[in-house]
Amino acid sequence: MALVVMKFGGSSLADADKMKLVASRIIAKKNAGNKVVAVVSAPGDTTDELLEMADKITSNPPAREMDVLLATGEMISISLLAMAIDTMDEKSVSLTGPQAGILADINYTRARVKKVNPKKINSLLSKNNIVIVAGFQALNPKGDVTTLGRGGSDLTAVVLAAGLEADSCEIYSDVEGVYTTDPRLVKDAKKLEYISYDEMLEMAGSGAQILQSRSVEVAKKFGVEIHARSTFSENQGTIITSEEKIRRRKMEELFVSGITFDKNQVKFTIIDLPDIPGVAAKIFSSLAKIGINVDMIIQSAAVNKKNDISFTVSRKETKKTQIELDKIASEFKASQVVCDEHVAKISVVGIGMKSNAGVAGKMFEILHKKGINIEMISTSEIKISCIVDEMDMAKAVEELHKGFGLSKKK
Amino acid sequence: MALVVMKFGGSSLADADKMKLVASRIIAKKNAGNKVVAVVSAPGDTTDELLEMADKITSNPPAREMDVLLATGEMISISLLAMAIDTMDEKSVSLTGPQAGILADINYTRARVKKVNPKKINSLLSKNNIVIVAGFQALNPKGDVTTLGRGGSDLTAVVLAAGLEADSCEIYSDVEGVYTTDPRLVKDAKKLEYISYDEMLEMAGSGAQILQSRSVEVAKKFGVEIHARSTFSENQGTIITSEEKIRRRKMEELFVSGITFDKNQVKFTIIDLPDIPGVAAKIFSSLAKIGINVDMIIQSAAVNKKNDISFTVSRKETKKTQIELDKIASEFKASQVVCDEHVAKISVVGIGMKSNAGVAGKMFEILHKKGINIEMISTSEIKISCIVDEMDMAKAVEELHKGFGLSKKK
Repeated sequence: MALVVMKFGGSSLADADKMKLVASRIIAKKNAGNKVVAVVSAPGDTTDELLEMADKITSNPPAREMDVLLATGEMISISLLAMAIDTMDEKSVSLTGPQAGILADINYTRARVKKVNPKKINSLLSKNNIVIVAGFQALNPKGDVTTLGRGGSDLTAVVLAAGLEADSCEIYSDVEGVYTTDPRLVKDAKKLEYISYDEMLEMAGSGAQILQSRSVEVAKKFGVEIHARSTFSENQGTIITSEEKIRRRKMEELFVSGITFDKNQVKFTIIDLPDIPGVAAKIFSSLAKIGINVDMIIQSAAVNKKNDISFTVSRKETKKTQIELDKIASEFKASQVVCDEHVAKISVVGIGMKSNAGVAGKMFEILHKKGINIEMISTSEIKISCIVDEMDMAKAVEELHKGFGLSKKK
Repeated sequence: MALVVMKFGGSSLADADKMKLVASRIIAKKNAGNKVVAVVSAPGDTTDELLEMADKITSNPPAREMDVLLATGEMISISLLAMAIDTMDEKSVSLTGPQAGILADINYTRARVKKVNPKKINSLLSKNNIVIVAGFQALNPKGDVTTLGRGGSDLTAVVLAAGLEADSCEIYSDVEGVYTTDPRLVKDAKKLEYISYDEMLEMAGSGAQILQSRSVEVAKKFGVEIHARSTFSENQGTIITSEEKIRRRKMEELFVSGITFDKNQVKFTIIDLPDIPGVAAKIFSSLAKIGINVDMIIQSAAVNKKNDISFTVSRKETKKTQIELDKIASEFKASQVVCDEHVAKISVVGIGMKSNAGVAGKMFEILHKKGINIEMISTSEIKISCIVDEMDMAKAVEELHKGFGLSKKK
């Protein structure tokens, strides 16, 4: 008898009808001869509503109490889903994260899972129950409930699949799987049959938020194969698995798996910095100290013992970054700080790049042919990213998607 | 250093401003030199909203899952209140019922508290924390959260006051205390300084729902003195305590403490039942079997080996009762079942009755003088109740309130 972990996101649980649909999918899985553990997020916009309630009281809530508040969202889902399953005459038992034996460290609001104690779940499964587990939450060493950070229900599903040695881990949402690019932008985007953990991580980092990144990291660490699929269709979704397994299964190797894009970045440039050691270090450690993550960085070659540094940050950090850079610029007597909000990041992702030189060259060529100017470039083993003018983004994505052979075969 | 348990109801926690007011009252109590344990209900209409969510899925939810769902309401209150206290630079820690060491039996949705383990609360108090406890919920022997029935937060406050050997137990709501009758009906109703546990129980049973009845029973059992008062004023409320203590404190004894009324009853009469043994037993055991609580009962003297039986039930049971009585009437060949929905119950409550004959006589005389017909009568040691036509209710309450000397002195 196979053991399946099924995870359902908030948009799949937004009202009573959707709850019932989820219940019927879980029961069908059980009736097909499986033991089932279902992991659920808070219904619909519940988490945002709870955050809003807290925000009316304070902009700086104690983290422990924030976790008590947020944990209620998933408790609503587990109990309502158990009720829906009961109406279909199946046995189920709901468990909070702490009851399910998910043990985390002492950090509140972004706890790390340390261990899964599978005893209670296994005992309930052996008595023929469907087990429903509240995602996103865990028990910490103090005996308090704690949460795993935004999107933490994916992580709950993966750690349970690992801890229970499940045969499969299915993550359901309102999309059909992982696509070669966003189908809302490029009509002939294709659903991928397989994608590797590393590609998935690079795509998540580039704005395609299908799975929480930490859950993908943990799945990779423990070799948990994830099936990302839709709650609202029976279609096969996308399997996220190891590179090795994909290479074994794929007949024809693709250089590139997907094109991603991210409009949520702004570019800062500090002009005429002195070309002396330690300037870059000072800038980026100052930004890190106030919690600002810098993404892409380029430094121009020095001219007249002066040079420029450009980098991108998340759009919501624009103001904070500007204030900090103004201080730094005056300290180093730089001539100017320029902020460009009209940029977009385009990335080409694929494990095929490792063994195939020339992907970068092909990317630049495709963009150049269409007259698209590349402002910044960064590369990793399996990803090449460019910053372009946001006006060019849609065209760039479409051309790259076509140019790398990702469009549906006619 | 005195230990005070303060309980706040949902209407005192309905929005962020009210939460902050409650936080400031708790802090003021601590600053006056007390250790404080605050017990809270779910905010505003949260419990009703949760019930509605469940109702959209099933009319017959599993009790265990209902408790998981309902317990979230109080978790929202404890975390938000802890945040509000934090904004005022005081230390507090929120605890769910299970974390607070409130241990109950195995019944879901109406569990009985078996024991309070005060270890965690005492440890937090000794570290100078305000402790905030979710009312209405407890841990059962299976390790599940369970709830104590509607109004169960009052019970939480009382069992904590008993278990922690608190010096006082203050129950805050949106009313100033217990009144001689409902001030909305009789303008010169007076707030009582003291009322005994038994009077309070009789008044609750007669429709004056200031405190949950079981909490009053438990307070009586453990000798916990309750101070019922308003969240929104500094005025002294009403002390609910033992008869003995009241007799010691009161200079002038009152025969009667209050007049209550209840429009939430309907009267059924079965006409021409055979006057043979076992008929009444059959009727009331049939009703009990389907969960219908009967309040007042009268049986007429037999005439021609036939008699009539009348009794009252809660208005919401009207239909269920009618169906059951129609069956019984046909079984015993009774001639008719009559349902009167236009009745009201008026009660005179007071420990003074025990040692003072003539209260009943005076009550009947007052009603008679005003031409109010009494349809049914029942008495206990400290209460006399009459069923009257609902058209006469307001007048009856006003006249009894005046007649027993309860109106404010001019």
